[in-house]
Amino acid sequence: MNILVQKFGGTSVANLERMRLVRERVKLGLAGADKAVVVLSARAGETNRLLALAEEWSSNPDPAERDVLISTGEQTSAALFAMLLRDDGLKARSVLGFQIPILTDEEYGKARIRSIEADRLRAWLKDYDVLVVAGFQGISPSGQVSTLGRGGSDTSAVALAAALKAGMCEIYTDVEGVYTADPGIVSNARKLDYIVYDEMLEMASMGAKVLEIRSVEFARRYSVPVHVRSTFTGTRGTMLIKEVKKMEQALLSGVTQDKDQARITLRACPDRPGVSAGIFGPLAQAGITVDMIVQNPSLDGVTDMTFTVSRKDLLKALAVMEEERGRMPGMEVLHDSNVCKVSLIGVGMRNHSGVAAKAFETLARENVNILMISTSEIKISCLIEEKYIELAVRALHEAFDLGKSAEG
Amino acid sequence: MNILVQKFGGTSVANLERMRLVRERVKLGLAGADKAVVVLSARAGETNRLLALAEEWSSNPDPAERDVLISTGEQTSAALFAMLLRDDGLKARSVLGFQIPILTDEEYGKARIRSIEADRLRAWLKDYDVLVVAGFQGISPSGQVSTLGRGGSDTSAVALAAALKAGMCEIYTDVEGVYTADPGIVSNARKLDYIVYDEMLEMASMGAKVLEIRSVEFARRYSVPVHVRSTFTGTRGTMLIKEVKKMEQALLSGVTQDKDQARITLRACPDRPGVSAGIFGPLAQAGITVDMIVQNPSLDGVTDMTFTVSRKDLLKALAVMEEERGRMPGMEVLHDSNVCKVSLIGVGMRNHSGVAAKAFETLARENVNILMISTSEIKISCLIEEKYIELAVRALHEAFDLGKSAEG
Repeated sequence: MNILVQKFGGTSVANLERMRLVRERVKLGLAGADKAVVVLSARAGETNRLLALAEEWSSNPDPAERDVLISTGEQTSAALFAMLLRDDGLKARSVLGFQIPILTDEEYGKARIRSIEADRLRAWLKDYDVLVVAGFQGISPSGQVSTLGRGGSDTSAVALAAALKAGMCEIYTDVEGVYTADPGIVSNARKLDYIVYDEMLEMASMGAKVLEIRSVEFARRYSVPVHVRSTFTGTRGTMLIKEVKKMEQALLSGVTQDKDQARITLRACPDRPGVSAGIFGPLAQAGITVDMIVQNPSLDGVTDMTFTVSRKDLLKALAVMEEERGRMPGMEVLHDSNVCKVSLIGVGMRNHSGVAAKAFETLARENVNILMISTSEIKISCLIEEKYIELAVRALHEAFDLGKSAEG
Repeated sequence: MNILVQKFGGTSVANLERMRLVRERVKLGLAGADKAVVVLSARAGETNRLLALAEEWSSNPDPAERDVLISTGEQTSAALFAMLLRDDGLKARSVLGFQIPILTDEEYGKARIRSIEADRLRAWLKDYDVLVVAGFQGISPSGQVSTLGRGGSDTSAVALAAALKAGMCEIYTDVEGVYTADPGIVSNARKLDYIVYDEMLEMASMGAKVLEIRSVEFARRYSVPVHVRSTFTGTRGTMLIKEVKKMEQALLSGVTQDKDQARITLRACPDRPGVSAGIFGPLAQAGITVDMIVQNPSLDGVTDMTFTVSRKDLLKALAVMEEERGRMPGMEVLHDSNVCKVSLIGVGMRNHSGVAAKAFETLARENVNILMISTSEIKISCLIEEKYIELAVRALHEAFDLGKSAEG
């Protein structure tokens, strides 16, 4: 049985007219598959409406109860779409998280999928041509409704595709696929036909708009073929794959920017064993994720330590540092939220040297000062002043010829 | 363990302010019981909003999918109220139909409860002081969400009280209890302290506003003590009981009116064996409930047959009669929707004669013409012209001294 999984986001199911378009996509999908499993998000705006309701009712809404509340958004989408399919003569039914069940952990609001029972799904697929699954939701070991966090419907879809060994998982969204750069910044940004899972993971900042990061991890772990494409144009989008043939391997896949960066510098920080743990331990405990970290060479037993956090976490991070300062006499805490990160991403980088040097040269030629650098096997990231971000993205896209297809 | 079941309707949970008042009712309830099971309806207007959505999406919404959709209304109420209780330091959680489970049949939209599993509820009641149950919903044998039809939350509450052997089932509503007559018509209508299940069942037309009829059947079958009272005033309401002591037994409990009546007369209907089946069989098949029926004595092999149906069913009933007319040459079909039913109700009637005679005399004295009569052991109903309805209710209430307490 060839099963197609299709996921449609909130803007795709916002109203009746759009759901009719989605129905056409499902019918087209069924033309090339035996059965379809359609995963839906809440209608655009619905989750925010429900979250606002929770905030109105409680200054600190219980996470488990909030999940009971907000999961109604996807339940509503699934019921309405199942009606629409049945009106068109299709054998369809809605399926909720608890009915499958999609078992998660107990981390309400950001639950992780532990397992998906495929037996009932397979049984229903004997009776129905389309199962309309409420995305974003699961059920915890204690039988309570859980939700997977923002963008969780992507994860629902990929996880269902893995559990059902689906031939394809199509993620329909309001963009046409993954681009070499943000088309809003780079006019000749090119849509990629393929992207390797690892690259997609590194594109988190850009990918967040296209595909939820945890769904990519899931796809990579279970080698789920994912096709990111547009609900509205229906043209071919970008395929997420494990690897491309060496001959076709481009050096780079794209350049991304991340404006959600704030920098904290600890000046004259005492340099002794355990000081890093003393700084980053409390930050982690406060739920703050640190992105880039640079430590300058020590001088006279003190050092400068610089790291970046998400802008929304800046004040919280400064408060944590304030608390730690008592234990680090003489240390000065500086911060700057007018910084951005520009990154070059590509698995082809692994086998080529000189990419970093060329990137730094390119930025220098444009008089863009590099504040911090971090590199991985397939990514080079530079922290720069925010005002230079568009300039930097365009210059790097141009320097590495990303507008020209390596495949064509 | 002394368990109190409390049910609050849509107007009682319409907004945050009202839910806070409901929270006070729950806390007062907990002062006299070990644990509380609170059953909530959808917030006022929510079910209609969801039904309108279903109608927008489909001209003929699938009943099972419609249930998936509208059950979100009670789910929302339960989650929000559980948050509110927890904010106040109470140990509370929401409970959905599938989690208990409340097992129903497969009649989506008007499902009947088959059984309620009390084990999980009892286990939760060890950890929580208040369980907030989403009313109106259950789960069918195939695991799909089902709803119990309009007013189904009353049935949820009474059925839960029966399953848990609760000490009391309080039904909170926007009226203060059950009255001897509609206070909007009769100024000295008196709130009843007690009413017998059988009387409450006969008060269907009036009771529909106070208590859903199926919940009364449930209460009677399992002898659940039910207390109908107001969310807003908090005063003592009306207790539903099995029987009152003979000494305290009033002759009558109330007079009710039912405006939802339409009369159909079949004139010169051939009077032969099976003709009734030929008329009422097709009506039943069309899902039309017939209320009163009168057949005049036969003359020359033809008879006049008169019956009443709900006004919303009149056109459908006339269409059914039109189809049958071919088989009954000469028959004439007349109809009138300007008719109402006035009823006297009381278990005390069983042991007293002359109630009917006094009722007919009273109506005659007011020049109210009686169009049809039907009686049971504890009820006398008269069909009259609609324009006389308030007059008739007031006259009967006065004639039988219902404004004066038999108990006081």
